Amino acid sequence: MTTETGRAAAETQIRKVIDDWLNALRTKDADRVVSFQAADHTHFSLAPPLMSQRPDAKSLQAWFDTWKGPIGHEIRDLKIVAGEDTAFTTSLVRMSGTKNDGEKPDLWFRGTLGFRKVAGAWKIVHEHESVPFYMDGSFKAAVDLKP
Amino acid sequence: MTTETGRAAAETQIRKVIDDWLNALRTKDADRVVSFQAADHTHFSLAPPLMSQRPDAKSLQAWFDTWKGPIGHEIRDLKIVAGEDTAFTTSLVRMSGTKNDGEKPDLWFRGTLGFRKVAGAWKIVHEHESVPFYMDGSFKAAVDLKP
Repeated sequence: MTTETGRAAAETQIRKVIDDWLNALRTKDADRVVSFQAADHTHFSLAPPLMSQRPDAKSLQAWFDTWKGPIGHEIRDLKIVAGEDTAFTTSLVRMSGTKNDGEKPDLWFRGTLGFRKVAGAWKIVHEHESVPFYMDGSFKAAVDLKP
Repeated sequence: MTTETGRAAAETQIRKVIDDWLNALRTKDADRVVSFQAADHTHFSLAPPLMSQRPDAKSLQAWFDTWKGPIGHEIRDLKIVAGEDTAFTTSLVRMSGTKNDGEKPDLWFRGTLGFRKVAGAWKIVHEHESVPFYMDGSFKAAVDLKP
């Protein structure tokens, strides 16, 4: 079983990976974002389809480029559950900024990341991002919730 | 690091937990569903709010009782990533059945589970369930997707 020291070390390493990954997202550095993802990465994204694979950096960069300036990624309630070589994290994420068409998205969503240590480095093998939806018959995505 | 044997054993144990947990969901056994959840369980559910804690069995049973007969839980594309004492799984889940008011929900959603081994037993410490939403300005939850 993972020792307390091992767990604390893993948590520190993962916190650092998340910081770097968020910075890559904020600064729209697609190559760097993809470098954190394992080859067998699966993604449950905010947008359809239900499931997608690791994006190529070029498509990701094209999406990044639909934003003017940086993309805000504020996180809160980060919880890290780490073993020696397997870990997952949960948090709430606020994404905000200005799109090229002037639209200003400002959205809180739930983010879960799954990690595996590969050749000494923590890689993201799974991402799950979502908002809940209203069960009132409208089936509207709850894009207006704040923590 | 986790050995291949250790990993395979963990995967078998977790597969069994998921089978039992799904059966508890299908047969609407709230006490049994809650027994799989760790005390510090967090839930990113299909319905608001953004985040909730472990449900009490009584509220869960009240929700189960809004369904006539069993609640269908079919899963596919189950992926288990397991270490010695930490693991997560991903899958697509089809929930279907008949509500007391005659409505017949039939929905595919994405399910991510986070596990921690506690006193020798794998416990669910995190659940994340969602559908994506349409980015066409309607902000409709994509409840019509099929894998």
